Amino acid sequence: MNSECNTKVNFSDAISELAILLDDRLSTSQAIRDHHSQDESFHQPFAPDAVAFPNSTEEVSKIVKICAKYLMPVIPFGTGTALEGGVNAIFGGLCIDMSGMNSITRVSAQDMDCTVQAGVTRRELNEYLRDTGLFFPVDPGANASIGGMVATRASGTNAVRYGTMREAVLSLTVVTSDGCIVKTSTRARKSAAGYDLTRLFVGSEGTLGVVCDVTLKLHAIPESIAAAVCGFATLQGAIDCVIETIQMGVPIARIELLDEVAIETINDFSDLDYAHTPHLFLEFHGTDLSVKEQAATVQELAADHGGSDFQWALKTEERNKLWRARHDFAYAALAKRPGSKILSTDVCVPISRLTECILETKADIDNSELNMPIIGHVGDGNFHVALSVFPDDKREMQWVDEFNKRLISRALKMEGTCTGEHGIGLGKKEYLVQELPQAINVMKLVKNALDPHNLMNPGKVL
Amino acid sequence: MNSECNTKVNFSDAISELAILLDDRLSTSQAIRDHHSQDESFHQPFAPDAVAFPNSTEEVSKIVKICAKYLMPVIPFGTGTALEGGVNAIFGGLCIDMSGMNSITRVSAQDMDCTVQAGVTRRELNEYLRDTGLFFPVDPGANASIGGMVATRASGTNAVRYGTMREAVLSLTVVTSDGCIVKTSTRARKSAAGYDLTRLFVGSEGTLGVVCDVTLKLHAIPESIAAAVCGFATLQGAIDCVIETIQMGVPIARIELLDEVAIETINDFSDLDYAHTPHLFLEFHGTDLSVKEQAATVQELAADHGGSDFQWALKTEERNKLWRARHDFAYAALAKRPGSKILSTDVCVPISRLTECILETKADIDNSELNMPIIGHVGDGNFHVALSVFPDDKREMQWVDEFNKRLISRALKMEGTCTGEHGIGLGKKEYLVQELPQAINVMKLVKNALDPHNLMNPGKVL
Repeated sequence: MNSECNTKVNFSDAISELAILLDDRLSTSQAIRDHHSQDESFHQPFAPDAVAFPNSTEEVSKIVKICAKYLMPVIPFGTGTALEGGVNAIFGGLCIDMSGMNSITRVSAQDMDCTVQAGVTRRELNEYLRDTGLFFPVDPGANASIGGMVATRASGTNAVRYGTMREAVLSLTVVTSDGCIVKTSTRARKSAAGYDLTRLFVGSEGTLGVVCDVTLKLHAIPESIAAAVCGFATLQGAIDCVIETIQMGVPIARIELLDEVAIETINDFSDLDYAHTPHLFLEFHGTDLSVKEQAATVQELAADHGGSDFQWALKTEERNKLWRARHDFAYAALAKRPGSKILSTDVCVPISRLTECILETKADIDNSELNMPIIGHVGDGNFHVALSVFPDDKREMQWVDEFNKRLISRALKMEGTCTGEHGIGLGKKEYLVQELPQAINVMKLVKNALDPHNLMNPGKVL
Repeated sequence: MNSECNTKVNFSDAISELAILLDDRLSTSQAIRDHHSQDESFHQPFAPDAVAFPNSTEEVSKIVKICAKYLMPVIPFGTGTALEGGVNAIFGGLCIDMSGMNSITRVSAQDMDCTVQAGVTRRELNEYLRDTGLFFPVDPGANASIGGMVATRASGTNAVRYGTMREAVLSLTVVTSDGCIVKTSTRARKSAAGYDLTRLFVGSEGTLGVVCDVTLKLHAIPESIAAAVCGFATLQGAIDCVIETIQMGVPIARIELLDEVAIETINDFSDLDYAHTPHLFLEFHGTDLSVKEQAATVQELAADHGGSDFQWALKTEERNKLWRARHDFAYAALAKRPGSKILSTDVCVPISRLTECILETKADIDNSELNMPIIGHVGDGNFHVALSVFPDDKREMQWVDEFNKRLISRALKMEGTCTGEHGIGLGKKEYLVQELPQAINVMKLVKNALDPHNLMNPGKVL
């Protein structure tokens, strides 16, 4: 990484021109730059040379044109809650903090869609929607910005039913590396009009352009929502229950695995008292009848696999407490080792291989000195081993790095992916090459065509 | 179009080299070339110089390498059932007929996915799957090849519940313009690993490479399936019923509109006797309970909007007869004017604008001499005016062209698209520019990067 950074140059002329455009919405203060030097992960921070706070797409276009003129890298920044160093400014340059672009431009209850600026967070959006009978389901845990979620192709607990950002985005307005403002698609639910640029930008992690406006599909708040917790005698029992639930076509809204270490972690942090065994956290959406029917099916499957009776969370507050505990998991893990940083693995495998992949990973954990929890969006085949690490502890970091290598290699052999939802960023570049050795060349052609001077979030993904 | 074709050159050296590779699986016979000169639409036929019949991805790679060496255009061909001239060889070149690549390579009941070669048709796949309890839902009517459906981002009657080819494809193996074999993704249900090349190739109509293998999501055959037909007093009533069904979140599997002209057309062709009023053809999938609940909801909505009682088709044969009649619609329209060709419009609008868009279109039809039927996958906001035309009748073609222009202009004003599912091909290039005036430049950059010599289905889409 250090050698990459030797090419860093002085951008004082660019910064002067940006200051004329943005006035006090451009900052070069050390504190602001440091705040934008990293996400929530263990990756080494790199501060940008300056941080811009635009308030319109047109302004982003002007900013990018100035950066292009001076060959200054551009790094979009949402809430900084990502996990693979995607915002760390390894070549310096200009960080564009999108938090000022936080308008909800349009909500159509009739079309069940909305358009928001990229800086709107998912919780802001859902609070705004509360009275419309609609909600935005994609839920990565952190209160990420919609733009950031587009960038990393985020998903999370609801994806098993509602899909990921790949499915949620109808259209984008992006600013490309030459400063052009490009609308990628119309608002039609489906279209066969040309290349799917929307999906090309979803998951491109800021390396092809800056996402400014996002048109999202929304969903009707179901008539009935019921959440439940179910403990299992064995990890295998819990996972097999998940696999059969999916294979039976139960349209479950959430089905989350927490192994016994994860349960201990959230018990401590969130003042809960679940038994120290593997658990599933479940949520059912539908009509009253359908929710009852789904729940009955999954209760039967759970019983077949050594599951306990369901502990129901039917009231909104109970449900919120349950999912808040799940969402706070990363912070719970950090709290166990004050001063530590998150390193979360993120493989996703075809569901037929999930039991095997998790059990082999568990055996690998059991061989270590570290007491590492496994949690996951198991309905999609996606799980995380959540590590709280001290990046300066070289011995621990080396062990963890080798552990992750083994895990990814295991997942790739099972036809899985190195990242289900966190993205490539800085941390997974070598694994992307392993995973898609021919496709990487096509990705490089696309990157070079859309960003010939390598100014858009350089050094990430590819 | 004629000026484009003046650049046509002699490919005899390329053909000689291809003949050594393929022997009798290369044809230059006039009959074979003519058969591959067009799809089912009105567009002017252009025969390729030769037709190759490969039987493996490796062979496609070798073929494309030879074509690249001689700068010979490459046009992939599935079943020739498309509607915008996507296979017509306007610059000559080599047509690659994929029908010999018709193996179903792998079905995983556990993962609910499969891998097929591009030449497998959707009916072949569903027949093969019959005993597995799974099915492949995407259903454009015609018995298209899976590769062709990838190429045009096909959808059809089931898309309202199960999505289009955009959602159905997990991964592709494609041969790019330099002959490289590229796997675009793993089999994981979700991934944040790099650019979404899968979605970039879905809908690229052969202009970025040749799709050879397709990994598809499958779905469990529902416990209960019930189809019904419902007549309406007015077109507006039928459409408003659709809109409310979608807005209430009923997970309906199919909801198809046929106006009174369309009903007359299928009555004649398929020996049916529906009343000459607008109808909805509906299908419900789910558990017994859920199907009953969905049907009760939609029956209530239908009654509110002047709908008749449902005529149920509960047995498999009855359902098949119903949908066969719907699928044969295009052939029914052609049969009314022997010797005619299909020109099907294909706009798709946000559902809040659907009633307005269809009623304005109906008024436009009523002003003409032509008795044109409206049919549509209205749950997605997508509808067709199906015209059987005589391409040599200049006056009629001019009127039809102007009618389509007005319709597309109306749809674009309503934030819709010029093509919901047929693709751009030859017929919609000018409309794509109207629809996405900035995005077209980004698409051109992508095309030029992946196919710098413009050999992959040249003259289409862009």
